[in-house]
Amino acid sequence: MDAIYSLESLKTFTFSMLTKIGCPDDQARLATDVLLSADLRGIDSHGIARLSGYVRLWEAKRVNAKPRVHVVHETPSTAVVDGDAGLGLVVAPQAMEIAINKAKTCGTGWVAVKNSNHFGIAGYHSMMALEHDMIGIAMTNASPLVAPTFSVERLLGTNPICVAIPAATQPAFVADFATTTAANGKLEILQRKNKEAPEGWIQKKDGTSSTNPHELKDGGALIPLGSDREHGSHKGFCLGAWVDIFSAVLSGANYGPWVPPFVSFLSPPANPVGEGIGHFFGAMRVDAFRPAEDFKNHMDNWITTFRNAKTVEGQPNVVIPGDPERETSEIRTREGIPLNSKVVDDLKALAERFELVF
Amino acid sequence: MDAIYSLESLKTFTFSMLTKIGCPDDQARLATDVLLSADLRGIDSHGIARLSGYVRLWEAKRVNAKPRVHVVHETPSTAVVDGDAGLGLVVAPQAMEIAINKAKTCGTGWVAVKNSNHFGIAGYHSMMALEHDMIGIAMTNASPLVAPTFSVERLLGTNPICVAIPAATQPAFVADFATTTAANGKLEILQRKNKEAPEGWIQKKDGTSSTNPHELKDGGALIPLGSDREHGSHKGFCLGAWVDIFSAVLSGANYGPWVPPFVSFLSPPANPVGEGIGHFFGAMRVDAFRPAEDFKNHMDNWITTFRNAKTVEGQPNVVIPGDPERETSEIRTREGIPLNSKVVDDLKALAERFELVF
Repeated sequence: MDAIYSLESLKTFTFSMLTKIGCPDDQARLATDVLLSADLRGIDSHGIARLSGYVRLWEAKRVNAKPRVHVVHETPSTAVVDGDAGLGLVVAPQAMEIAINKAKTCGTGWVAVKNSNHFGIAGYHSMMALEHDMIGIAMTNASPLVAPTFSVERLLGTNPICVAIPAATQPAFVADFATTTAANGKLEILQRKNKEAPEGWIQKKDGTSSTNPHELKDGGALIPLGSDREHGSHKGFCLGAWVDIFSAVLSGANYGPWVPPFVSFLSPPANPVGEGIGHFFGAMRVDAFRPAEDFKNHMDNWITTFRNAKTVEGQPNVVIPGDPERETSEIRTREGIPLNSKVVDDLKALAERFELVF
Repeated sequence: MDAIYSLESLKTFTFSMLTKIGCPDDQARLATDVLLSADLRGIDSHGIARLSGYVRLWEAKRVNAKPRVHVVHETPSTAVVDGDAGLGLVVAPQAMEIAINKAKTCGTGWVAVKNSNHFGIAGYHSMMALEHDMIGIAMTNASPLVAPTFSVERLLGTNPICVAIPAATQPAFVADFATTTAANGKLEILQRKNKEAPEGWIQKKDGTSSTNPHELKDGGALIPLGSDREHGSHKGFCLGAWVDIFSAVLSGANYGPWVPPFVSFLSPPANPVGEGIGHFFGAMRVDAFRPAEDFKNHMDNWITTFRNAKTVEGQPNVVIPGDPERETSEIRTREGIPLNSKVVDDLKALAERFELVF
């Protein structure tokens, strides 16, 4: 059974917890906002369920609670940001802000980030661009769980990418997804329920197909979008590779098998090729291309054309990217956020350990 | 049986043909180079096999043989280019050149193009960036053959995207692919051989699965990368949508179901929402992020790490994007380009019609 919590109560707790480990107030507030946006939008795997994990990484001295996030190199339209080992929840929105400011003066802004950590949902950061009538792009690499096509080694993370595009009267187009057939969060749901995964999501350690959601513990791997070579998994591999290279080879972060794990009980590789994990952000002013009103009116036309297309039997409409998350967000703002009992127990234990109340 | 032709002989013929329809010499030379790069790289569906189709579009007055390709709007890092209804083969490399020049002064350059036509292979244009130590990005929308997840209507093209990334001693990483499970060219091969397609490539007009490669003639559609909802086809839909929006909604070209068909016997939609088809190009100087030598050395490490990963039985190595096309290119430069007998007949008829020799 899930218990229901109000957004405000979860925000208050998260903020208190983050200040306990030494986050300055403004950074704790920002990180709280980023973290809870995942719970609001229904991406439960990336929300408050991760809070205790972040705290454990801080305890292992792998997260700096007071990072000095700073630009180490820049041109008119680009920057590289050093996250100073801070929480990605704090580093990422600051880096996106830099991209947005560059777009204001230069048309577009592109920021690669090194020395960071898990940044929550990509959607939060790319959606920051929308209120400026900009297209926002956010991506991050992640610890290696994915085997490229033909590989039995795990060399890539689920490496999500989000593109947010403003419209006029229609809600924005927000496509936020892992570059694997299924996100790790989907697998975690099956693990909790002890249900089989569909073919094409996971492979065994010898590269053959598996439906066991626990396969990764035995050396298995997630599979790039496409599922197998015949259905284009090499294209999913390309997508994951772009995210890895843009996020880490451009910035000077760790890439491929060197990306440090997100969990404190696994040590980072001994021979890093860079610093921390990497992100990549982009902001493009739509009026750097054509008048914003023209663009947004055509986006309205694009969205309604696709949403109202004739559908297969039993489907009311084509799902426009971002619609499901926005609808969940509206419901949860009104009715509260459901938390799994395991997550509640974990947060209660965390609260007790830090003399807080959950 | 395929006949073998030397690259030079095919270039000579293509150049002569293009000048016959009125292309200025410099543009005919450029278009020839773009077109034949597809045959060289083994992407036969996008090479000289399309030449007679381009000529028919010119005869139907849908291609302007002497376009004045020009910038209609710009900022330091962006431009919108009007292709003046020229061959995409001519418009696209000029637009990419503008992106490269903007990147030289500004770090990155981003160019959206309207009023263009089919541009050959995306790889040609993005690879133009490599010699400048830049990452090159190229994408284009295309006539609607693809049904978004849950749709039975064809609303998107196969909308390819290519990202080319330079390395030091390793060949560049060049990922060039349609955002569908299978490219239309793959389907054409099955059509010629009258072979069935794998499940997950095509749907019937009611949205159910089909293995008939001729299904599109009966109202069927290609399927976005991912094949079905359970395997992430909504992500493939997002990719195709980005390409469509970046290429056409940003530039003022036609998008979605309004993209004009590539064949002269089908008329463009009567109520266009823009001009011609659209492309989008990007160039990012790698030293806008970190010293080029550092970046390229890490790319070498990235590439060799992935190529040398342990593989599934029977696979010698992980395929790095761009390797197969480069290998084909080396072989065909040496040994000549094989042309299907249908293509040869088509080119012979074209030659006769324009008093040329093939």
